[in-house]
Amino acid sequence: MRRLRCRTPVPSDLHISQSLKPLQISRIAKPLGILPQEMDSYGPYKCKIHLSVLNRMSCAKDGNYILVTGITPTPLGEGKTTVVLGLSQAFGAHLGIPTIATLRQPSQGPTFGMKGGAAGGGYSQVIPMEDFNLHLTGDIHAVGAANNLLAAALDTRMLHESNLSNEQLFDKLCPRRGTLGKRTFARGMLGRLQKLGISHEDPDSLTPEERQAFLRLDVDPQSISWKRVLDVCDRMLRVVEVGRGLKEGRPRDTGFDISVASEVMAVMALASDLGDLRARLGRIVVGSSHTGGREVTAEDVGCAGAMAVLLKDALKPTLMQSVEGTPVLVHAGPFANIAHGASSVIADRMGLKLVGERGYVITEAGFGADIGMEKFFNVKCRSSGLKPGAVVIVATVRALKHHGRGVLQQGLCNLEHHIRSALKFRVPTIVAINRFPGDSRDDIECLKSASLGAGALAAVECSHWEEGGRGAVDLAKAVEAACTPEAASKDQTGGFTLLYPNELPLRGKIERVAKDIYGAESVTYSSLALNRLNALESAGYGHFPVCCAKTHLSLSTDPTKLGAPKSFTVDVRDVKLSAGAGFVTPVLGDIMTIPGLPVRPIYFDVDIDKDGKIEGLF
Amino acid sequence: MRRLRCRTPVPSDLHISQSLKPLQISRIAKPLGILPQEMDSYGPYKCKIHLSVLNRMSCAKDGNYILVTGITPTPLGEGKTTVVLGLSQAFGAHLGIPTIATLRQPSQGPTFGMKGGAAGGGYSQVIPMEDFNLHLTGDIHAVGAANNLLAAALDTRMLHESNLSNEQLFDKLCPRRGTLGKRTFARGMLGRLQKLGISHEDPDSLTPEERQAFLRLDVDPQSISWKRVLDVCDRMLRVVEVGRGLKEGRPRDTGFDISVASEVMAVMALASDLGDLRARLGRIVVGSSHTGGREVTAEDVGCAGAMAVLLKDALKPTLMQSVEGTPVLVHAGPFANIAHGASSVIADRMGLKLVGERGYVITEAGFGADIGMEKFFNVKCRSSGLKPGAVVIVATVRALKHHGRGVLQQGLCNLEHHIRSALKFRVPTIVAINRFPGDSRDDIECLKSASLGAGALAAVECSHWEEGGRGAVDLAKAVEAACTPEAASKDQTGGFTLLYPNELPLRGKIERVAKDIYGAESVTYSSLALNRLNALESAGYGHFPVCCAKTHLSLSTDPTKLGAPKSFTVDVRDVKLSAGAGFVTPVLGDIMTIPGLPVRPIYFDVDIDKDGKIEGLF
Repeated sequence: MRRLRCRTPVPSDLHISQSLKPLQISRIAKPLGILPQEMDSYGPYKCKIHLSVLNRMSCAKDGNYILVTGITPTPLGEGKTTVVLGLSQAFGAHLGIPTIATLRQPSQGPTFGMKGGAAGGGYSQVIPMEDFNLHLTGDIHAVGAANNLLAAALDTRMLHESNLSNEQLFDKLCPRRGTLGKRTFARGMLGRLQKLGISHEDPDSLTPEERQAFLRLDVDPQSISWKRVLDVCDRMLRVVEVGRGLKEGRPRDTGFDISVASEVMAVMALASDLGDLRARLGRIVVGSSHTGGREVTAEDVGCAGAMAVLLKDALKPTLMQSVEGTPVLVHAGPFANIAHGASSVIADRMGLKLVGERGYVITEAGFGADIGMEKFFNVKCRSSGLKPGAVVIVATVRALKHHGRGVLQQGLCNLEHHIRSALKFRVPTIVAINRFPGDSRDDIECLKSASLGAGALAAVECSHWEEGGRGAVDLAKAVEAACTPEAASKDQTGGFTLLYPNELPLRGKIERVAKDIYGAESVTYSSLALNRLNALESAGYGHFPVCCAKTHLSLSTDPTKLGAPKSFTVDVRDVKLSAGAGFVTPVLGDIMTIPGLPVRPIYFDVDIDKDGKIEGLF
Repeated sequence: MRRLRCRTPVPSDLHISQSLKPLQISRIAKPLGILPQEMDSYGPYKCKIHLSVLNRMSCAKDGNYILVTGITPTPLGEGKTTVVLGLSQAFGAHLGIPTIATLRQPSQGPTFGMKGGAAGGGYSQVIPMEDFNLHLTGDIHAVGAANNLLAAALDTRMLHESNLSNEQLFDKLCPRRGTLGKRTFARGMLGRLQKLGISHEDPDSLTPEERQAFLRLDVDPQSISWKRVLDVCDRMLRVVEVGRGLKEGRPRDTGFDISVASEVMAVMALASDLGDLRARLGRIVVGSSHTGGREVTAEDVGCAGAMAVLLKDALKPTLMQSVEGTPVLVHAGPFANIAHGASSVIADRMGLKLVGERGYVITEAGFGADIGMEKFFNVKCRSSGLKPGAVVIVATVRALKHHGRGVLQQGLCNLEHHIRSALKFRVPTIVAINRFPGDSRDDIECLKSASLGAGALAAVECSHWEEGGRGAVDLAKAVEAACTPEAASKDQTGGFTLLYPNELPLRGKIERVAKDIYGAESVTYSSLALNRLNALESAGYGHFPVCCAKTHLSLSTDPTKLGAPKSFTVDVRDVKLSAGAGFVTPVLGDIMTIPGLPVRPIYFDVDIDKDGKIEGLF
């Protein structure tokens, strides 16, 4: 731990980060009981933790699992990450209770675009913030590499299938080798052979029908759902025509998503171990065949193994530290509006073991509780089986006034709505009031009483941004109280529950989320969406949870509707399958899967001098 | 150092790598005199070396600088990297002479495509080869991120310039801020202001003409030479139309290159330090203005500082080890056909200081001597000022028979041609005969005598692939002999010289390379190429060296012409400027700047088991 000396006024995030020399990362790892052979350093201040920790500690009891979520934010965000850090600094550096914060690695798109970094801020942040915000240990790049290998492999296969006869294709895929001229199947072909029910080991023994089925993925270009990705805000890549001017092959329209919103990232975030990662990658559906509309998977394309190899290190969470020297595990990616957008199951599970029964893992889910929290529970907790002990909803007077178009009382409905949503999952709910210098006493009190009125166990002012963990000690005490068995029974929450069972059909799930969580009156479907939902139910994906893509700026699908809109309709425009991640994504309203840059992006501020000192990141 | 026990037959590269436990990287760094605070570990077996080593050792004398190049290779390669490693293992592990091999980081495109990894092979390779071939320490990804940030920034600026009035643009770029409503210029705008000769610090004090010039980059979409990049073999991305279906902005044709062939990679490879990197990035020309055809640079776009920040760690070379525990510095990227394709100036310079006056830095230049070596001398040594002590040309009986269409004697002309090319730079030249099991004694002798006849100082058989450094001890002794002052004077090479002076006009440089190095009879130019060359001369880029893009499969521009073709013409199809890297690229014949995947790529072989063991990489 490190004792902070907080300055007033609070310097810039980058200044704070640069003025505090971090502890060697081994000094963060050791008190957690991580063995030296279980960590790979990446420079002095960060390391990756081996997954073997989970095996070694499989019998240890889990700590308390706390989710930090928020009200519907303004475009600048309301400080969820600072609350995660402030709260865990309060536990770890002020109350002497073991704690780990689990955060997502920021995307370099927003870092250089409009939002800036995502390391928290003020005296509640991760250091070195430059490392946190730039590349980190390369996980997002690895996700991009795996994603784009699959995209190239798919297009390549289509190209060669269209140019070559069955004989040519067979000779190239299974060439005669060695002095005996023997053909063999490659390792990456075995998955498809198994799916086709072919058990012969000798390619020459396939029947003509089997050979045809083995050779021809027969992908319908119109069916392809797999896109390429980059970790940059680049609206020109939303829709592109690839393959122009090739002598062979045909151009086709496709597009790029931002890497962190890719299915590969979700696979990594939801995988329980390396074997599960490999299996999920193989299940990724990239499109379907012309004849019969059979799904074509990454396993069929033959590169799921290579994708897993590209992700082998990315699957290990990265350990860093807060400004007060408390541990932070960084893993997986953000963008809870268009992705599931939570830190990884592996990092949370590792954290829960490492902090021990008395300890606390504090994690966050992106944007407002309507998207981040809903997905955290219905998608992530459903997949991991982990049960949260309490939810913290971050609220600011500034944002609630924004929701009330200047009048706080008229904006409180947004906070009240999110509190009631959290209680539907039967989790003790606490409001963290992220205090800003200009907030009046009346406003704070008003926010407190509205919180309690809506069912929150407590509503606590926090000043962790100016004061570090000391400013969140009251919040930590409220969280601790909420996690006692007595509090849970007194509050009659009766224990965590999911919003819907697996068995509910997909349309039922969408409607449950839209009505119970967004407050919609009705749900409509485009014919495209309806067809896709029906096809997914028939194909056996009806048991998947839904992971809606929706604006984060409103409870509704219209970003201009503030507060807690009523009588609105949710329009399901499209539906996508993420068979590897294990969810179905209804696309609600207009939502972009790769952002653009504004006129005056943050990169204008950023530079480095000849000695390596960075300026202008925040 | 580590004593090898070589097995017969030689197991697969991956098997050798997995069966040898590497030494902790600190044990490799320490004997070189690298201080603990000068290294950042990336796991136990690799670390990045701080550039401060160069400052600390600035007064130390340089070691001997040895370039390994080759004959015109077959598509599988003739073993240059294994010779680099075998030779440095011979020096370091068998002769007790300090040595460092400096290698390029492989591109993941070929690793999963047709070629496989590039860690050397057999008992002359870098370990762990999985780390070497996969992501390494993320440099190529960082290059891609910097490249693609500039691409997105350029398109964004064009979009907003076309949508906004001068007033709107001014208000967004320099918004009024604070209680006084004062406008300021961002750090990233200062470069453009300086270029425009504007010294006011207050945006409101610009004259209308100055404001117009500041606000409007006015980029002509037809002039844009900057492309996006990815580190994958994906032919569908060669030409793409971006920006389809955007409400604002216009679609345009552009394309992707493979990351390692990008100008950003060349900038990193040629930069002398962080300050030089930052300055070079700012000089990158992305296109020109509609009116007046003025160059638009990354500095004008305002993101050169952010690009440098993205590259701050990538600029540090990565230290690894050979199978015999000798040090290997890995930096920058391959593809000497379409890029300059050599390891970095920084890594070589660092290596030369670290090995000391008696020591040897062994580096390589890609493909045949006509492209890799020519660029190594005329581009890289011109930029660094470093002088090579000897050149090693790698030859195989197999490839020379291929050049002779089955008859060795008829293929020797290729080797003789490359030896004579090397001697034009007045560097002592040695032939390394990379022996294969089936090679006959007669063939080897024939190759030796041809080498000596063409002017090589020595021609030495090597068996480092089967035997490690022991199999290259004779080669090392020949290299050592060539580096003595006596040998240099006896050989009357008279010391290293460049092929052409800076002052020679660009067309003269192209013709010098085409005739003296490729053996062409004449050079023709497309009208596009001629216009560009004239424009570049007028714009003041005539003093740059040329870095030709040409097939690596022939001395000519036609990959089917084997041996040492005569009476051929080199057609200059296009010309590109790399103002940041500091060279001009004539595009000779048909050459692709992003490869495609074959029907049966290597990814079919690659997989990982649940314990993390990788299979199928080679």
